[in-house]
Amino acid sequence: MRADARDNRTRILGAAEEVFGRAPSASTDDVAKLAGVGIATVFRHFPTKVELLEAVLTLRLERLRNRAVRLADETDPGSAFFGFFSQVVSEATSKLAIADALSASGSAVGQDARNAGTGLREAFGNLLARAQHSGDVRADAEFPEVYALLIGASRGATAVGLEPAVRDRMLALLYDGLRPGRTT
Amino acid sequence: MRADARDNRTRILGAAEEVFGRAPSASTDDVAKLAGVGIATVFRHFPTKVELLEAVLTLRLERLRNRAVRLADETDPGSAFFGFFSQVVSEATSKLAIADALSASGSAVGQDARNAGTGLREAFGNLLARAQHSGDVRADAEFPEVYALLIGASRGATAVGLEPAVRDRMLALLYDGLRPGRTT
Repeated sequence: MRADARDNRTRILGAAEEVFGRAPSASTDDVAKLAGVGIATVFRHFPTKVELLEAVLTLRLERLRNRAVRLADETDPGSAFFGFFSQVVSEATSKLAIADALSASGSAVGQDARNAGTGLREAFGNLLARAQHSGDVRADAEFPEVYALLIGASRGATAVGLEPAVRDRMLALLYDGLRPGRTT
Repeated sequence: MRADARDNRTRILGAAEEVFGRAPSASTDDVAKLAGVGIATVFRHFPTKVELLEAVLTLRLERLRNRAVRLADETDPGSAFFGFFSQVVSEATSKLAIADALSASGSAVGQDARNAGTGLREAFGNLLARAQHSGDVRADAEFPEVYALLIGASRGATAVGLEPAVRDRMLALLYDGLRPGRTT
């Protein structure tokens, strides 16, 4: 891909993320306008809206994964884990809007987004393991239920349309359950 | 309504709950078959699929509310609260299927279902207040975040398609965060 084509692709993806994150029913035309390119350029890179949505979702998942990978180098595994958890939940609304737009289009999530999702789960699992090793998260919590809490908190915050203050108090309750020192 | 018409209505609603809870895209014809009535009888009671879905959702919400009201008489407010929470989450999959079918039909949730939802929230708030008063739930947890946890756990369990054992472990983590004796 030539440099200017790559620039256009990046610009289109950035615009699509913003436009669809706000209103999943937005049109490809809205994306072209915000990106400052012609509609023909958008279609050259992404022949259908589904392909564009898919690319945006993949980009989001990969970005979260990369953040989780970087956080695995932090010296404090506890704040790396809880900080990442909070970030995922607070960004959930626009990510879920994109995922819902995809499923509303009747299209199954494609291979790229599935791979990105797997990468994210692995990176999150690594953050969890480190926080358990350092004693910041209870050792008896297993990955599937912690991951379910992450998904649940994200979906709950989105469904109810929580204000940030309520979301933070919800997460505080949840984190207390994840910390060690309490027996069930 | 005559007694046999009322019987038919009850039978149709029961069948619709089962059919749509399993497959939201099911047809009114499937409902008629399971209810053992003719399709004309279904349409006489519920002229559109949306009206039928709406009635099923309202019925579910009212039933949950009634259960919460009954549980408010239990002698152990802690097990009433946590037991109700678990029940809502474990039944969430089919209830959400019905709610999603309604929103996929492009129809906003109508007044009956909204009223039933308000009644459920009030009854749940009452169970929470009693469990806080008895010291089974921490006093500093406020209703909005506890309700967000209930919605989140329900949606998380449904989205991930959790096995019952993982769901129970997820709830155990969550309940530990709701119990008193831990400071944030």
